[in-house]
Amino acid sequence: MSLRVAERISGIQPFYVMELLRRAKELEAEGRDIIHMEIGEPDFMTPQTILKAAIAHTATGDVKYTPAAGLPELREKIAAFYRLRYGVTIPVSRIFVTPGATGAFLLALGASLNPGEEVLMADPCYPCNSNYVQLYDGKTRTIPVGADSHYQLTAGLIERHWSADTKGVLIASPSNPTGTMIPRDELKKAIATTERLGGCFYSDEIYHGLVYGETAATALEFSDEVFAINSFSKYFGMTGWRIGWLIVPEIFIEATEKLSQNIFISTSSDAQHAALAAFDDATLAELESRRLEFEKRRDFLYDALVRLGFEVPIKPEGAFYIYARCAKFTDDSFKFALDLLESEGVAVTPGKDFGTHEAHHALRFAYTTSLEKLADAAQRLERFINTR
Amino acid sequence: MSLRVAERISGIQPFYVMELLRRAKELEAEGRDIIHMEIGEPDFMTPQTILKAAIAHTATGDVKYTPAAGLPELREKIAAFYRLRYGVTIPVSRIFVTPGATGAFLLALGASLNPGEEVLMADPCYPCNSNYVQLYDGKTRTIPVGADSHYQLTAGLIERHWSADTKGVLIASPSNPTGTMIPRDELKKAIATTERLGGCFYSDEIYHGLVYGETAATALEFSDEVFAINSFSKYFGMTGWRIGWLIVPEIFIEATEKLSQNIFISTSSDAQHAALAAFDDATLAELESRRLEFEKRRDFLYDALVRLGFEVPIKPEGAFYIYARCAKFTDDSFKFALDLLESEGVAVTPGKDFGTHEAHHALRFAYTTSLEKLADAAQRLERFINTR
Repeated sequence: MSLRVAERISGIQPFYVMELLRRAKELEAEGRDIIHMEIGEPDFMTPQTILKAAIAHTATGDVKYTPAAGLPELREKIAAFYRLRYGVTIPVSRIFVTPGATGAFLLALGASLNPGEEVLMADPCYPCNSNYVQLYDGKTRTIPVGADSHYQLTAGLIERHWSADTKGVLIASPSNPTGTMIPRDELKKAIATTERLGGCFYSDEIYHGLVYGETAATALEFSDEVFAINSFSKYFGMTGWRIGWLIVPEIFIEATEKLSQNIFISTSSDAQHAALAAFDDATLAELESRRLEFEKRRDFLYDALVRLGFEVPIKPEGAFYIYARCAKFTDDSFKFALDLLESEGVAVTPGKDFGTHEAHHALRFAYTTSLEKLADAAQRLERFINTR
Repeated sequence: MSLRVAERISGIQPFYVMELLRRAKELEAEGRDIIHMEIGEPDFMTPQTILKAAIAHTATGDVKYTPAAGLPELREKIAAFYRLRYGVTIPVSRIFVTPGATGAFLLALGASLNPGEEVLMADPCYPCNSNYVQLYDGKTRTIPVGADSHYQLTAGLIERHWSADTKGVLIASPSNPTGTMIPRDELKKAIATTERLGGCFYSDEIYHGLVYGETAATALEFSDEVFAINSFSKYFGMTGWRIGWLIVPEIFIEATEKLSQNIFISTSSDAQHAALAAFDDATLAELESRRLEFEKRRDFLYDALVRLGFEVPIKPEGAFYIYARCAKFTDDSFKFALDLLESEGVAVTPGKDFGTHEAHHALRFAYTTSLEKLADAAQRLERFINTR
């Protein structure tokens, strides 16, 4: 007998973009100038107010375990933020501070999903979301979605794909990779349908705040019986700190508490003390100016891509991605991405990192780089397309 | 149909010490002076050298995702530490930086354990270890151990309890709660037996460094085919930072990499930059003086407990715990602990938090408090025992 990798691992797909990243690094090492549009991380630094709070805490030297659910004052601030932003009141007992949104997913699914049970998700979607399901030996059923439903699941799709094994539904709005949002009414209907079917509703809200039209609705506006996942990474500019939060239905509080005590002990004390400054007026003002900058980038990149012949049926309303169809240029978007990197030094993410539905005709462009670089990238893209 | 908690949750025991902690807080709120001997966290602050490294990194504002496996320079430093401390050479590719030892366990078991498979552990042992197994819908078979085997599993016990469902063996040395260590030869034999049976060997080494006699042996001295789990929390005084590491057998590298990308993205950038200073000479000198202080405390508390009539068959050789038999005073150590807290304001952890084997006759005393407080606690214990 010899050591063997657990079966769940074979169900976890590698990220194809990693191959691109490796090549991009090689090219950079050779002195090539690479424009990175593959990265799902804001290029902005963590706001100064947050850095100061972290440094003040570190300087005390008292960087100890916190309660598993998080610092009480941080949970209070999160609750206050929901009152302010969404007008909803969430009892602090339902709020768990977590090591990133990844930690929130580990808790939400660990507390609710049994092996063999199924979660419905849109295709395309963020690949890690189905990998948390895989981790617990559950199954993901992906449902092809298109522009007609804003690349989001609908109540009708949920009902049509529900089976005896279905445990719940995961919706991410704004979506990674499409940047599109589920309309408020559709979200309400999707939740109502899931509840009627007796399922769990997992709402991935990690791009809330980075929205360029109407404010995103939280699932919590429509029900107390949902899981809402959020993060300090994207909107608050705290990726490297690894801190997010999870809001659970009342009946999952005890299970979530038990799990978090066991699998995390607690979230980084430094990150939590830093995040205490995340809701300060000065921080929110800084974040608003960044949001406006992201909006400008979106507008620029959207116009550029459409002008070049990419199809973007719905102008993205949030996050920092544009998911563009490249059917006019190729039937193999992965190869297109590799060639683009090789010829012009522009790195983008191939569609097949987000599912299979029309993935060969799709590319994700992240505008996590400056307007100047985006303009440069648009020129390189144009040259690449014209010389093919 | 209504929402239901996942079945795995019911298999996760609550920590009984939480009840004691709640009561201790109430008593403190009433103005009572409580001596905390229930806490598995060093009372020392994070060393200044480490704090400085963290602050310098935070001040750059560039707190971003790192590679999933950790900063290359930190992985190199960990490899160098193994060469220095244990004389073993570990390829950096086998070293993963993780969010605490908890993260290391999540990866090690996620990469290797299938649902329904069984892991052998000692009783008593640290309860979270079996809860990681539970998380992946595996099973824990606990094996009663006593002073005759230093409260550790042996090759003979492993062989005798091996079944068709057994996937592997978890050994923690020094042990929480007993502070005892597996002798070097026994560790070698236990690994050889596990390998012969085709199982995974998980070596929990998080209390290495906090050892008061012969240096602890790492499982890696005897085999490359083991999982070694370690942490910056205990010896390096970095509990609140949530950073540890995992060393995996070669064939698990890819699976571990995939899992860590998906479930963590990366470990806290701040914690990693802080930990870069953990192996500096100045830090190690500071840690050595702390180790000597812990040793003094162990000697004091061991003598005091034995003098009072507690039985401690093996003087603990590591960690910061004494697991004492209290059969002379009670057949219900949990009630004893509650009464002790109520009467004398001394908080200790009941045996049943660590298993069932003779747990009703056991208490865990942590010496994570000053010698002065330990002396005070000994007096209170004496008064408590004499007035029962």
